[in-house]
Amino acid sequence: MSNEEFIHGGDIYTHGILKGKKLIDFSSNINPLGVPSGFKENIEEAFEMVERYPDIKYRELKDNIIKYLYKYWGTTLEHKNLILGNGASEIIDLSIRRLKKVVIPAPAFSEYSISCEKWGCEIINSALLSNMDYDYEDIILKLEKADGVILGNPNNPNGGILNNDKFKEILDLCEEKNKLVIVDEAFIEFAEENATVINYLKKYRSLIIIRALTKFFAVPGIRFGYGITFNDEVIKYMNENQNPWNINSFAELCVKYALIDEEYINNSKAWIREEKEYMLKELNNINIIRKVYITHSNYILCKLKTCDCEELYSYCFKNGIVIRRANNFIGLNNEYVRFAIKNRELNDNLINTLKAFK
Amino acid sequence: MSNEEFIHGGDIYTHGILKGKKLIDFSSNINPLGVPSGFKENIEEAFEMVERYPDIKYRELKDNIIKYLYKYWGTTLEHKNLILGNGASEIIDLSIRRLKKVVIPAPAFSEYSISCEKWGCEIINSALLSNMDYDYEDIILKLEKADGVILGNPNNPNGGILNNDKFKEILDLCEEKNKLVIVDEAFIEFAEENATVINYLKKYRSLIIIRALTKFFAVPGIRFGYGITFNDEVIKYMNENQNPWNINSFAELCVKYALIDEEYINNSKAWIREEKEYMLKELNNINIIRKVYITHSNYILCKLKTCDCEELYSYCFKNGIVIRRANNFIGLNNEYVRFAIKNRELNDNLINTLKAFK
Repeated sequence: MSNEEFIHGGDIYTHGILKGKKLIDFSSNINPLGVPSGFKENIEEAFEMVERYPDIKYRELKDNIIKYLYKYWGTTLEHKNLILGNGASEIIDLSIRRLKKVVIPAPAFSEYSISCEKWGCEIINSALLSNMDYDYEDIILKLEKADGVILGNPNNPNGGILNNDKFKEILDLCEEKNKLVIVDEAFIEFAEENATVINYLKKYRSLIIIRALTKFFAVPGIRFGYGITFNDEVIKYMNENQNPWNINSFAELCVKYALIDEEYINNSKAWIREEKEYMLKELNNINIIRKVYITHSNYILCKLKTCDCEELYSYCFKNGIVIRRANNFIGLNNEYVRFAIKNRELNDNLINTLKAFK
Repeated sequence: MSNEEFIHGGDIYTHGILKGKKLIDFSSNINPLGVPSGFKENIEEAFEMVERYPDIKYRELKDNIIKYLYKYWGTTLEHKNLILGNGASEIIDLSIRRLKKVVIPAPAFSEYSISCEKWGCEIINSALLSNMDYDYEDIILKLEKADGVILGNPNNPNGGILNNDKFKEILDLCEEKNKLVIVDEAFIEFAEENATVINYLKKYRSLIIIRALTKFFAVPGIRFGYGITFNDEVIKYMNENQNPWNINSFAELCVKYALIDEEYINNSKAWIREEKEYMLKELNNINIIRKVYITHSNYILCKLKTCDCEELYSYCFKNGIVIRRANNFIGLNNEYVRFAIKNRELNDNLINTLKAFK
């Protein structure tokens, strides 16, 4: 497996799909309920849409996102508050691009530092506390020398969320000192309803929130993410640095039907509530695991006791399961692994496999 | 209509789709045979693909392009010769990005100069000759002070193609002086078989060819283009400056089935041969048109005689037809319009509308 594949979290293509081998992928954190049926059922519409260039302003698409954010979070937005990306990764990249020095928690999603390197932005890491909470004091201290901070809410790979009061201190500081606060909420739909920081947007122009269809709506291949901010200048800069027609017609259609699929949304929330509890309990009973970290997302970070992540990876792989070795996250080592939460059948498969490890 | 919409060639959304009004779009140059049926028929496959992240290396996708280029052009390529884009516009943008000063014909596709402005690349325009051929002497002269040139083959908006011998002089010069030759072949499938310059790739590392599914396979909404070059250093640079997973699953599937659809390809080539002849003949018989330029593509540039492009645009619009005013192309003025070539019924509709203009 190349370094590139490894960084991007267990490439199931090299050893699985391209070889016709069936592997269960616990390394990728996708809603197991799969592609929303409303999208599939209306796919004919996309065949008409795809024959013409998309609306260069994506007006209908933006309307659909605005309605969704209003319905589920009560947020009132205008088109000019949204920036659309060919995946959240485009928005992450555009957010980081102008920064000179940025505070990034360690561990965090690897794309943050990849974009920093690409744009020559210096990284100041702020280590998570031993319980994997953010170290707010340290972040605030380090922000003195930085012009921005990126925080996952929930954070990847641990699944921790922001503490509202302490986050507000960061916002107050950054608003006053004209620094950027980038919050990656790609997994927010898996968390409790009040976990979001979206309600700070109106008051704090320093805040950018990044979201995506990818995880909760189970469509990583659709390539759609978006940024939300009341900072007109940031939106203008991002717009100017995008290519035209960056969103494909199928993503447009998916937004149209997935975001209004109440049944899918409700079932997904019920599933994650139940399976998260179940998996936390089960993993806590496994001999080879020293510590299971609290999560507010659809993945669980664990610290191993009697084996390292490479050994466990090889063992699981032999049993048809791909897990995420977490040793390439900054701040973690080969004692750490991350498991996606899937449906009960697959979760039990993983649990039984882990139990049988000797 | 905003400037942005105008630059991008007649936005049919503002006045058409978003208002529920049916307009015939002669401003956008898309194959009227529509989305290849092989893609539609196999769409179920995409629902599986879209639930996982695409292969970060897009190995199957690259295989499919390589097979297509071998079958229809006899070109032998490896994966490392290909760079994939979220539309050809991404590849155009990445090609221009490192250049300091570039020769661009006038008129040419507006995205070239938009990318130049974005990256601070100075533009040296080389006016087309009065018959809309490239002025090779002028290009070679201007290349002395530039580090690259972009040429459309066929060129947009006129449909002219490169003269092989004269193009070779440009290549020889650029190869020797380490300059970049970017050839945009987004419309090449509409041209005669020997119009391509793809066979120069192996000998000239200075050459980059850009292609797309957009026009010939009638899928502008799919967002897929690609660059081909034997210049490893250019590929490396482009790769490093892309975001991961920039191609969506539906584009992957479309490549898989559209490029092997022989019937579609043959029917499309038969259609363009016939309708191009027909339209050239018919347009030459229209009173208000002073000159019809030779084209090797699926659009025709015309110079008007008794009215200007704004008048003709308004008149056609009242008759449910959107044409392309060509006055915002550098080097052209309000005497010019561009018409797409569509199927016989729609072409006759346009011709009759133009004939009735008073």
